[in-house]
Amino acid sequence: MARSWATFGIDLHLDPAGPGLRRGLTDALREAVRTGRLAPGTRLPSSRALAGDLGLARNTVADAYADLVAEGWLTARQGSGTRVADRAAPPAPAAPARPDRVPGRPRYDLKPGTPDLASFPRAAWLRATRRALAAAPHDAFGYGDPRGRVELRTALAGYLARARGVRADPDRIVVCSGFAQGLRLLAEVLRRRGLPSLAVESYGLDSHWDLVERAGLSTVPLPLDTHGTVVDGLGTEGAVLLTPAHQFPMGLALRPDRRAALVDWARRTGGLILEDDYDGEFRYDRRQPVGALQDLDPDRVAYLGTASKSLAPGLRLGWLVLPRPLVNEVTALGGARSTGVMEQLTLAEFMASGAYDRHLRAARLRYRRRRDALVAALAERAPDVTVTGIAAGLHAVLRLPPGTEQSVVRAAAWHGLAVHGLSRYRHPDAPAGSPASPDALVIGYGTPPDHAWAGTLDALCAALP
Amino acid sequence: MARSWATFGIDLHLDPAGPGLRRGLTDALREAVRTGRLAPGTRLPSSRALAGDLGLARNTVADAYADLVAEGWLTARQGSGTRVADRAAPPAPAAPARPDRVPGRPRYDLKPGTPDLASFPRAAWLRATRRALAAAPHDAFGYGDPRGRVELRTALAGYLARARGVRADPDRIVVCSGFAQGLRLLAEVLRRRGLPSLAVESYGLDSHWDLVERAGLSTVPLPLDTHGTVVDGLGTEGAVLLTPAHQFPMGLALRPDRRAALVDWARRTGGLILEDDYDGEFRYDRRQPVGALQDLDPDRVAYLGTASKSLAPGLRLGWLVLPRPLVNEVTALGGARSTGVMEQLTLAEFMASGAYDRHLRAARLRYRRRRDALVAALAERAPDVTVTGIAAGLHAVLRLPPGTEQSVVRAAAWHGLAVHGLSRYRHPDAPAGSPASPDALVIGYGTPPDHAWAGTLDALCAALP
Repeated sequence: MARSWATFGIDLHLDPAGPGLRRGLTDALREAVRTGRLAPGTRLPSSRALAGDLGLARNTVADAYADLVAEGWLTARQGSGTRVADRAAPPAPAAPARPDRVPGRPRYDLKPGTPDLASFPRAAWLRATRRALAAAPHDAFGYGDPRGRVELRTALAGYLARARGVRADPDRIVVCSGFAQGLRLLAEVLRRRGLPSLAVESYGLDSHWDLVERAGLSTVPLPLDTHGTVVDGLGTEGAVLLTPAHQFPMGLALRPDRRAALVDWARRTGGLILEDDYDGEFRYDRRQPVGALQDLDPDRVAYLGTASKSLAPGLRLGWLVLPRPLVNEVTALGGARSTGVMEQLTLAEFMASGAYDRHLRAARLRYRRRRDALVAALAERAPDVTVTGIAAGLHAVLRLPPGTEQSVVRAAAWHGLAVHGLSRYRHPDAPAGSPASPDALVIGYGTPPDHAWAGTLDALCAALP
Repeated sequence: MARSWATFGIDLHLDPAGPGLRRGLTDALREAVRTGRLAPGTRLPSSRALAGDLGLARNTVADAYADLVAEGWLTARQGSGTRVADRAAPPAPAAPARPDRVPGRPRYDLKPGTPDLASFPRAAWLRATRRALAAAPHDAFGYGDPRGRVELRTALAGYLARARGVRADPDRIVVCSGFAQGLRLLAEVLRRRGLPSLAVESYGLDSHWDLVERAGLSTVPLPLDTHGTVVDGLGTEGAVLLTPAHQFPMGLALRPDRRAALVDWARRTGGLILEDDYDGEFRYDRRQPVGALQDLDPDRVAYLGTASKSLAPGLRLGWLVLPRPLVNEVTALGGARSTGVMEQLTLAEFMASGAYDRHLRAARLRYRRRRDALVAALAERAPDVTVTGIAAGLHAVLRLPPGTEQSVVRAAAWHGLAVHGLSRYRHPDAPAGSPASPDALVIGYGTPPDHAWAGTLDALCAALP
């Protein structure tokens, strides 16, 4: 659970799951002084500036500074700020450090999957909470409808129709605690229907496959060619899980002819398509994002959406738009029964007030700028690398010369970068080594905070061949 | 999902899962005027007063009034308020109504399980949300620790030690989405360990038994005598689920000698005790509530607590205090991964600021007054009924003359009361008809809003033999 912040030239390794943030920050600063990474006399940023940088409360930083002043590691003097104490010289190393042999903890996080948490719209979220609390009827605080609050289902129906082309009405929506819970509910329903397996894409997240397998279904990967997932071999699988708008992690949209073939298959065989629309909000290369597949046949597609990329994973908010017969099967297994009413009502208010659209516009702009900077930097400084999958989303695939993926991942670690190779997303039963399965890095450009983005790009370019 | 409000002398049947509250309220009022339950000329309460009464936003009520004025059912005149229009006379009934033959929808809800939702501390909750949002580090909005936020686990450890005698440290606490999710996680862990069954009490909630059975374990009821659950016959069951502080629904505390015998059994056989402490906060007959069993052996007891009775079920907040080896097993199955961070951080702040203690003191007083009024009314007006299980909690057991339970439940329905007989809480494999299994009603006195409590008591006394 360790989290690394690059700030004022050093990185602080804080463990938010550890003994409290104040103590964690105190320990990390003390260690930086003790080891000489913060040299004697160095002036530290103001507690307000560091708090802003790290996303901590100002008092947490001020308290950590005060502790270290009391311990003699730092000095605080009116007008001169907080500095590293002179006597806090590092001990002479017993042997020369060999920084080229042992990678430290990563300073820059380029793993995909998490949006920029520093841009969570706290003030607007609080306003929506205030309005939601004022407007909620008393019975909102009870056990409630297993599909979730009607206010949120109504807001979602409008938003999904407008922004994603989903044919949704509130009666067919079930609120859930993020994509994973939605997938777990659907997998349990499919197992109860007697399905032995679920077809999946050749590349995806092993945590999703594990979850499906824990529910009692095996996962069977579909073939992949250079145009994306091949669907014309589908037979009597019964159900298939896909990311049609922006394949994760490859980044392609499923081609129109394959979308049509998929729906034909579902109609012909009575099959069910599980559409994972995890980042459909972020599309950069056309006015309209690629619409959801669900629109082609709402009776054959179970659509799964989430606020984890568009807002923040910590909210634990997701939604299913289901063929009618599935609604009761899913709610019988719990449905929205694990999703807090305040988060539901707040998101409903956030959507209805227009704050969600405003947040998405700003986020889209921010991520597109990062993507453009990534593409420009790579074109200039790593010309052997081809960037793909960048028309949408929060990640890119950097294709590498054949046979180099593992060595590049290791080189990145030496440069303080946490990156994932593409191969870790390959299903264990999918073939490796085809042109559709290149050596590559999967670069999540949503995660670093804005102030660290330039340094992160520098480190990435330095690590590439 | 229909909910019935008794207000200004009539009851309005609103379906919050239906086509929206405004339309639901409009339909209910129109129906009351059309059928004559609201007579021509009747002055309606102000929109502000009715909104407060029903727990709706004032605009919802004002809009419903405006719609009905537009339709001609109501009239609104400056200085004279909103009245039922004169021409809105009810049609003469085609045949005489026979109110003694067909029960209407219940007007009074005495089913146990839900606290008074009208007293949810909205303003204090909003203040806690504001402080939590200001203090949260950015990474709080990420996927986070599967045990839940450290701020909440720290607050819970302090509260549970102080208020419930639980030996908790934050590392052994796992936050979950209420009791049901916690039980599901534990049942899955027990099944993975190879346990075939879980011992349960003879009386309890069938939804809990169903949940355990869906996880792949059968439930086996323990015997019951007039002192409560009999535990000395426990053998190699492996695990047992109990409500030691306040048996649900019978209302007794597990006797000290049986608590000790239970822990002896667990130590002797390596068994696990699942302690459901659903309403431990509400104890009326002594200064200190009956402490948690967990304190006797934290390595043998998995303690389950919840905010569903102490605050509101809609928050979806619960917590497990686990023997250390169970922590990883539970988090491997998801742990806190379905619980929203804002609800976690807000409860942490709510506890740390003292607002939780203040809320509990006020709630304890409110519920004790209701309990006292219930006991006094029954002593005066239903002397054949014995009240038990009232030392704690939000419900009472009303013992009835043998053989009368079903007829009393039916009589209550004629009086507009939703009540449950004790027999519906009996495990299907538990024996009926013993002195420990009397005819009785289970009366939840937490649910009715304050303004309806007196009328509810009247109706109850009228329905009793």
